[in-house]
Amino acid sequence: MKKIYVVNLKGEKELFSLAKVFRSARRAGASKDLAQKVARQIEKSIYPGIKTSEIFKKVNQFLKKEDKGSSLRFNLKEAMKKMGPSGFPFEKYIGDIFSAHGYDVSLNRKIKGKFAVHEIDFLARDSKTLYIGECKYRTYPGERIDLAIVLGVYAKFLDLKGGNYFRLPKSVELKPMMVTNAKFSSQAIRYAKGVGVGLLGWKYPLNRGLETMIEKEQLYPITILPSLKRYLVEPCSQAKLMLAKDVLEENPDKIAEIIGVERNRILPLISEAKILLGS
Amino acid sequence: MKKIYVVNLKGEKELFSLAKVFRSARRAGASKDLAQKVARQIEKSIYPGIKTSEIFKKVNQFLKKEDKGSSLRFNLKEAMKKMGPSGFPFEKYIGDIFSAHGYDVSLNRKIKGKFAVHEIDFLARDSKTLYIGECKYRTYPGERIDLAIVLGVYAKFLDLKGGNYFRLPKSVELKPMMVTNAKFSSQAIRYAKGVGVGLLGWKYPLNRGLETMIEKEQLYPITILPSLKRYLVEPCSQAKLMLAKDVLEENPDKIAEIIGVERNRILPLISEAKILLGS
Repeated sequence: MKKIYVVNLKGEKELFSLAKVFRSARRAGASKDLAQKVARQIEKSIYPGIKTSEIFKKVNQFLKKEDKGSSLRFNLKEAMKKMGPSGFPFEKYIGDIFSAHGYDVSLNRKIKGKFAVHEIDFLARDSKTLYIGECKYRTYPGERIDLAIVLGVYAKFLDLKGGNYFRLPKSVELKPMMVTNAKFSSQAIRYAKGVGVGLLGWKYPLNRGLETMIEKEQLYPITILPSLKRYLVEPCSQAKLMLAKDVLEENPDKIAEIIGVERNRILPLISEAKILLGS
Repeated sequence: MKKIYVVNLKGEKELFSLAKVFRSARRAGASKDLAQKVARQIEKSIYPGIKTSEIFKKVNQFLKKEDKGSSLRFNLKEAMKKMGPSGFPFEKYIGDIFSAHGYDVSLNRKIKGKFAVHEIDFLARDSKTLYIGECKYRTYPGERIDLAIVLGVYAKFLDLKGGNYFRLPKSVELKPMMVTNAKFSSQAIRYAKGVGVGLLGWKYPLNRGLETMIEKEQLYPITILPSLKRYLVEPCSQAKLMLAKDVLEENPDKIAEIIGVERNRILPLISEAKILLGS
């Protein structure tokens, strides 16, 4: 295959990768055949200098025609962007994700360290680890979580560790964890590895990133449903409808009532959630 | 004296203090007699709920009538505010202040720590200490430097200390130092004391704050001169005219030439600098 350069969200040139297109379709749940078909179609239609956002759109269009569920799941990154200015509390969503992975989660705590009182987005504990979690939500794709933020997380962790609050059995390790929907700068990654701050972000760590945690347990945010208008995002999150699957666990009338809209606004959400989750 | 509450820059009520007015006039260089006279005048003219900024104006007016030098020096805090959006590099000014106090200063360095490369605003070294200095300039009075910033400074310091760059004789201590024209939050102060981050800010530490360092060596920023129009602040700082006293060390024609204005714009600056510095 010939080499073609495309332009990513940061505005940098990068080599076009057919494998990436194939993998992204597969990750959204497309069959091998469909993913291959999509990749071939994309290969035909790209040109040097095409934006990755344009390729994204094309993939989505092909998927939509062939497999609606895959095209819905393919929009996860966009769905994260819709959380943005809308009052969808990112740290609460992250809490739900850790809960679903078997952690005991507690949100928005104030805890006294050795020298200062710190605000903590979440604590997540399992039998081996107690994570002190800090969340950073970013609206713009291509933004990076930089070194300065991770420095702050580490110093906060040291002060908390030095305080009297956490008295853990030796079998449980106290660890700092930084969670974001964005990516990390290379300096931030190098530093975090060095001092032992756990990082969880978009496609980071590779194959164990936030998107994998979401996809594995189908913890798609409700913002992934195309019929969810922006003005409904905040009422939904206040009604604890954070996940797409939440709309399947209550009857439509009840949902309509707690959000304060008409029933016919809820029905399309339910049918989209069913397609998305293949149920 | 009766108790009167005034409203400070943060919008909080505080008890009016005649002693404070007296001290502020004294600090600006007013004689004891003049400072007492000012305090008496202020006492007569205040009323419950008056803003401290209003009291500040009144003091300034009284001083102006009686002792022009004091009224110029009294404006130091306002002069710091004029640095703001104008391209007056605060860290360079701070570097000048440390230099004048006998430190070897180096500005805007990139230094490799144990795990990351850090940007450092200044290094200041004397026989006992090498300060790793971080500067934060704030335009709005009443803003506080909070815990998050000091956490970052400390983690950066730890990483730098752990790296190979600083090889110091045992007699020289490596210390982090945070410098600002603002004040610090109480959490930031408690934490900084605990971990050993030096803080230098407005009236902090008490009687050894930034304003004292400036006043002691008459290192007033050029922005304190009333005739310095805003559009001249950046050209001045680029021409290394950072301090009021700098305009007395070169002849007016030369200054006019490097800044790129007419000579008659420079003459009032010079006469103001003379009054300010009592020379």
